[in-house]
Amino acid sequence: MPRKFTIAEIASALEALEGWQAGEDQIHRECTFAGHIEAVGFVVRVAMAAEVMDHHPDLRMVYNRVEIRLSSHDAGGVTGRDIALAKRINELL
Amino acid sequence: MPRKFTIAEIASALEALEGWQAGEDQIHRECTFAGHIEAVGFVVRVAMAAEVMDHHPDLRMVYNRVEIRLSSHDAGGVTGRDIALAKRINELL
Amino acid sequence: MPRKFTIAEIASALEALEGWQAGEDQIHRECTFAGHIEAVGFVVRVAMAAEVMDHHPDLRMVYNRVEIRLSSHDAGGVTGRDIALAKRINELL
Amino acid sequence: MPRKFTIAEIASALEALEGWQAGEDQIHRECTFAGHIEAVGFVVRVAMAAEVMDHHPDLRMVYNRVEIRLSSHDAGGVTGRDIALAKRINELL
Repeated sequence: MPRKFTIAEIASALEALEGWQAGEDQIHRECTFAGHIEAVGFVVRVAMAAEVMDHHPDLRMVYNRVEIRLSSHDAGGVTGRDIALAKRINELL
Repeated sequence: MPRKFTIAEIASALEALEGWQAGEDQIHRECTFAGHIEAVGFVVRVAMAAEVMDHHPDLRMVYNRVEIRLSSHDAGGVTGRDIALAKRINELL
Repeated sequence: MPRKFTIAEIASALEALEGWQAGEDQIHRECTFAGHIEAVGFVVRVAMAAEVMDHHPDLRMVYNRVEIRLSSHDAGGVTGRDIALAKRINELL
Repeated sequence: MPRKFTIAEIASALEALEGWQAGEDQIHRECTFAGHIEAVGFVVRVAMAAEVMDHHPDLRMVYNRVEIRLSSHDAGGVTGRDIALAKRINELL
């Protein structure tokens, strides 16, 4: 099982991750797109990357806005798997 | 602008709409799929239908679970547009 | 029914459409992406735009490569609907 | 590198795979859906499964019709990877 990061470790990891913020036992990011079509294209890309990494985000889409929350439920917080997926998501933006 | 439905009108419309429930100023449905891939396929179908109807849901996906909330923000509640989209979503299931 | 463009009209329309080429009774474009995930995101965006315009491309995807052919079958060639969809696709790239 | 199947091996494998046919150095299937939206949902599901298996089909979509060709280019023909992906695609139908 991946190890749960401390608040300091999360803060340190997020320094290199543009757009992500730390919440309680999760990290999250919000993205806004030109329209709904572009938002859907992004959601599909994120969902594909997540399936390959076998680690799935909490994704919410309203028109052109996408909110992503990442957490490792088995570890009860943020782990290296969330940071890795956040990096991958930023590459896909 | 579409007219906001009364609680009685919403209840009446939902009788013919399997799986949907009324909340405060919205209707919502939750769907569970065999896996993440099937959930993504559904989200894409719903997003396409919504774009064609120019009425967009609040969609949330976590792994194999999809939550949909429908509301007409300009009317401050549920209108015929939400009922029409809910019907279309049920056809796509 | 939309009117079929002459070869000269197609050539003139394509001048303003980067990446598109004229074939026999169709126009086509090929796009290459960083990977399969990016190609799928593009295919979904194109498919959504096509559904809204009610005019559908011939789409082929192999890994990170997408080929698009546009033609108006009812008119037996290229019409203004193909040019409009090609413009929309270029916006989505 | 996966081993290329003989014609007899391909024929034997396809007996259990509804809808697939053998061509020269590939297997292929065509699927027709209620509409474009349903076809796109299927293409996304297939593309996700393919990305997870790291083996990618030749996918063609025209409105509500999807053609899939599977081949292992490194082996110059059909291998166990194509049969495995074909099975997965049939599960997603």
